[in-house]
Amino acid sequence: MKRRRISHLAPGGGRSVAALLEEYRKAGVLGAGDLAKAAEIYREMLRRRATVFLGLSGPLVASGLRSIFAEMIRRGHVSAVVTNGGNMVHDMIEAFGGRHYVGSFRGDDRALMREGMGRMGNALTRHADLEAFEKRVGRILASIPEDKRRNLSPRELFQEIGARIKDERSILRVAYEKGVPIFSPAVVDSALGLELYLFSQGETLVLNAIKDMRELAEIVMGAESSGAIILGGGVPKHYILGAHTLRGGIDYGFQITMDREEAGSLSGARLEEGRSWGKAKAGSRLATVIGDVTVLFPLLFYGMEDAP
Amino acid sequence: MKRRRISHLAPGGGRSVAALLEEYRKAGVLGAGDLAKAAEIYREMLRRRATVFLGLSGPLVASGLRSIFAEMIRRGHVSAVVTNGGNMVHDMIEAFGGRHYVGSFRGDDRALMREGMGRMGNALTRHADLEAFEKRVGRILASIPEDKRRNLSPRELFQEIGARIKDERSILRVAYEKGVPIFSPAVVDSALGLELYLFSQGETLVLNAIKDMRELAEIVMGAESSGAIILGGGVPKHYILGAHTLRGGIDYGFQITMDREEAGSLSGARLEEGRSWGKAKAGSRLATVIGDVTVLFPLLFYGMEDAP
Amino acid sequence: MKRRRISHLAPGGGRSVAALLEEYRKAGVLGAGDLAKAAEIYREMLRRRATVFLGLSGPLVASGLRSIFAEMIRRGHVSAVVTNGGNMVHDMIEAFGGRHYVGSFRGDDRALMREGMGRMGNALTRHADLEAFEKRVGRILASIPEDKRRNLSPRELFQEIGARIKDERSILRVAYEKGVPIFSPAVVDSALGLELYLFSQGETLVLNAIKDMRELAEIVMGAESSGAIILGGGVPKHYILGAHTLRGGIDYGFQITMDREEAGSLSGARLEEGRSWGKAKAGSRLATVIGDVTVLFPLLFYGMEDAP
Amino acid sequence: MKRRRISHLAPGGGRSVAALLEEYRKAGVLGAGDLAKAAEIYREMLRRRATVFLGLSGPLVASGLRSIFAEMIRRGHVSAVVTNGGNMVHDMIEAFGGRHYVGSFRGDDRALMREGMGRMGNALTRHADLEAFEKRVGRILASIPEDKRRNLSPRELFQEIGARIKDERSILRVAYEKGVPIFSPAVVDSALGLELYLFSQGETLVLNAIKDMRELAEIVMGAESSGAIILGGGVPKHYILGAHTLRGGIDYGFQITMDREEAGSLSGARLEEGRSWGKAKAGSRLATVIGDVTVLFPLLFYGMEDAP
Repeated sequence: MKRRRISHLAPGGGRSVAALLEEYRKAGVLGAGDLAKAAEIYREMLRRRATVFLGLSGPLVASGLRSIFAEMIRRGHVSAVVTNGGNMVHDMIEAFGGRHYVGSFRGDDRALMREGMGRMGNALTRHADLEAFEKRVGRILASIPEDKRRNLSPRELFQEIGARIKDERSILRVAYEKGVPIFSPAVVDSALGLELYLFSQGETLVLNAIKDMRELAEIVMGAESSGAIILGGGVPKHYILGAHTLRGGIDYGFQITMDREEAGSLSGARLEEGRSWGKAKAGSRLATVIGDVTVLFPLLFYGMEDAP
Repeated sequence: MKRRRISHLAPGGGRSVAALLEEYRKAGVLGAGDLAKAAEIYREMLRRRATVFLGLSGPLVASGLRSIFAEMIRRGHVSAVVTNGGNMVHDMIEAFGGRHYVGSFRGDDRALMREGMGRMGNALTRHADLEAFEKRVGRILASIPEDKRRNLSPRELFQEIGARIKDERSILRVAYEKGVPIFSPAVVDSALGLELYLFSQGETLVLNAIKDMRELAEIVMGAESSGAIILGGGVPKHYILGAHTLRGGIDYGFQITMDREEAGSLSGARLEEGRSWGKAKAGSRLATVIGDVTVLFPLLFYGMEDAP
Repeated sequence: MKRRRISHLAPGGGRSVAALLEEYRKAGVLGAGDLAKAAEIYREMLRRRATVFLGLSGPLVASGLRSIFAEMIRRGHVSAVVTNGGNMVHDMIEAFGGRHYVGSFRGDDRALMREGMGRMGNALTRHADLEAFEKRVGRILASIPEDKRRNLSPRELFQEIGARIKDERSILRVAYEKGVPIFSPAVVDSALGLELYLFSQGETLVLNAIKDMRELAEIVMGAESSGAIILGGGVPKHYILGAHTLRGGIDYGFQITMDREEAGSLSGARLEEGRSWGKAKAGSRLATVIGDVTVLFPLLFYGMEDAP
Repeated sequence: MKRRRISHLAPGGGRSVAALLEEYRKAGVLGAGDLAKAAEIYREMLRRRATVFLGLSGPLVASGLRSIFAEMIRRGHVSAVVTNGGNMVHDMIEAFGGRHYVGSFRGDDRALMREGMGRMGNALTRHADLEAFEKRVGRILASIPEDKRRNLSPRELFQEIGARIKDERSILRVAYEKGVPIFSPAVVDSALGLELYLFSQGETLVLNAIKDMRELAEIVMGAESSGAIILGGGVPKHYILGAHTLRGGIDYGFQITMDREEAGSLSGARLEEGRSWGKAKAGSRLATVIGDVTVLFPLLFYGMEDAP
């Protein structure tokens, strides 16, 4: 049996990120090998003009990746986003003038509360920025015509919000402009969800959780080839893959996560598991990279900069 | 400073699970110490008759814990359940005559597909059982009066289903009988969600994702003291903790998970993080146990059997 | 294909640890399934009177497992121990009157230093107990005849120490009495190693690292069947498995660890990897359990109490 | 309290690795923040001309990092290396004409055995290359004067081997040329250790495990300031930190590992733990990065290329 040799990384002159990825590819084992495989799949998705779904879990927007996700949409890398509610809340907080701050995993959370800071990992949000967000969202909801509010889907809600955001760095704004849908099946489980509930106490508001499925189904079934970029697992991962049972599975996919398979959750499952359900095609190209998204995804994305 | 001594576990005669937990407590460090602390908090919740929320993520029902969860509800350990959709789908599959099977993490998922088996970790579901589930769910949905279907919440949906299940081992059945609400904010992201969508193509069906929040809020705000048992993270964890901002946080809580904090996701966050948000009280008693739920939670639960 | 059904754990009356293990076996998936498989292998090793090697890494003795390991030796469960130096240092500290204490992962290590406490995970050692250990070890070394000290192996060193310990709970004492060898190829990398170095500055002392290999080889090659209990990975795991290339590999083995394979280290490797090297036989029975040794190993050991 | 803002990574033109590290620094949270902190500490070590100890665990040399480690020594980044035996075995295998190959975590290890391949993670070694290594090592040992072999330390052994290697890409060769000592307290636990044992059956050979400690102590105590680069934990980590109790601890240090602290092993411990032992100074600058060394360390090293 012919086996491929491991090539050692070659320390040399000034390095580009793309060159580093190429060296990982030549080494070909452990994390470097996995990441290189993910990069190849990403390039292949772009080359084939696949319909790409981006799945976002964890506080990725607050933690520094906001502009990268906005840029992916701007460049047409992705056809749809599926996200937890939190990432869009953080996008809005920044669009409305708030910021996120550097904290610590090891501090006293009681002191943070007194300081008026909420913690997500070691990123911080000011409670005051969250309150400003709540007020703005209340006004946005009030500005949506009541007949729309009688049967609103999460995707429509984010489109309405995106249309009302001025900040050009906002993911919601860019997605609105580019016509890229943002799905969020668990959006009620977020600070936005709480605001929706409070608004619904006095005003007409029905958030129809199943309404988006038709649109998602149309995108999935209309795709010539289909790919998934899964950052962090959770509901977004499951929603993207589950919808793909309607077409026999994704053709391409990679995920970056710290979760592992042995606990049995879908978050930690290798993408290959999807082949037993028709969530991934038998012949699909798949990669799993174990690691931190804030380090590894920028590395991949910058390595794509010379891609088509 | 007075420090507590570590007592060595004492191998002896026939051991009960409760005695083993007591030995972990006397040792007091590493996983044994964490698990013993969780057991103390669990006992304390029961003793104080706290309003306890059970959060379920991962394929726990399929993987052998179905009867334990049903029994917890039967005994009045929990006042509300918050779950991913999947665990209730698996409860229904078994209620409708299906079963789950032992598979492997290392097999060929293409061969499983040909065999008609879907994989979740190393548990398997027969595609045929899933199809039987889909048919039964369709009939159940059709039997719900149309005016209810015009604005149904996930909690109401599960109550309607529970009322129509005969299997007395079913979590949904027991919860229905005991009047324990089952919340599932991301239920659309499951095989049940797909079925809801298909049904809604021909029949009236609106699943109002924000409707449950009022009821959840009432339970949270009406609680004298409040506790959380979080098995596996994900949306259920966030939903339980998020709702508790309405009362300044939980009083007691423990979680068992394989996720860690460094990736920043809420799934891996220590419960102490909640103190910076009013999701956990400043004086709350909290424990995090890193480990496999299918091993550790039965150990805790059996250790509670002589509890009040 | 016939598939085994997952049986749900059955909450019932007063439970023994052995009964819980049996319930894990009937469930058969995720961590519960892995642990049950390890228990079966452990029972099989005992039933077949296999030559069993116990590998110890991490601060297991300080963290509460000292008496369990001593009891395993007393009962004849193990034919040889391979350990890091630290676990034997902690055994000696307690044999010489010291204790270990409950600390925290989250404290201030500078304050611990001022308090005179050293931290290992969340277990603590008093610096004063370590100094007492150093003095006693110095006297023990001086009492070993100089001609032995000219070419001493780690196994011989531990035998000499064990012969001089009075504490009947001591692992070193019990191993000496039962004639069970304790190997420790990296013993110089420990507080004992530092003491050996200091002693060697003024007195004759050569610690011959390769001398033990002959004895280990004889045990390995003389075994009718051979098994490994690997708690925590590291050098002990590698040393046990490496020696087994001399006989084509172990027949039985299980490991409990928090390490995973994807980083490529032997600590995280599944035991199956050993089959590619002749460290495990092609037909060997092997199990890997991901989890905390301080919880899972007592569970297994207590479940063995009615074993032959 | 003044808090630092998180800056979002800014997708732009052609990126260098150094620029990416700078963007991680501006983001400042999660893995990106940890890696940026490690990079700052690395730069600071070089700027202060600290005495730097490089600790190597896991199959890093086989997996593609051989040339990077050799280059670090060539450039004077490190004053001493502490390694498991395996990494030097792999360096020798390649120096003697062998190679390493790309395998899979998911293959059949029995088939690999038949193919004559041994697996380490998903890197492979040909058994034939290992046998060639054994023969060459035997000849090298025989060429070492017998009086030296009567009391040889691991450091001296590696120096003797390095002096006999022609391959200029070899770590052992470069270390020999630059006079950088290579320590390996657990070297007997490796394929080299097995060879030492076999040689010692017929010839004079004593490997004195404590002899190196004096030299290591002199380097540690002679350092104006001292730093540690710990890749992967294990014995090398402990040996470097333990030796530093002789001078009150390291001044700088970072580690990259997939191990976590909760299992209590030193491999997973944060470097701060060392402050309770005098292994790290109270005022030391320390960083822990959770992740794969084969991805993260090249990223750091290439980012240093414009450093002094």
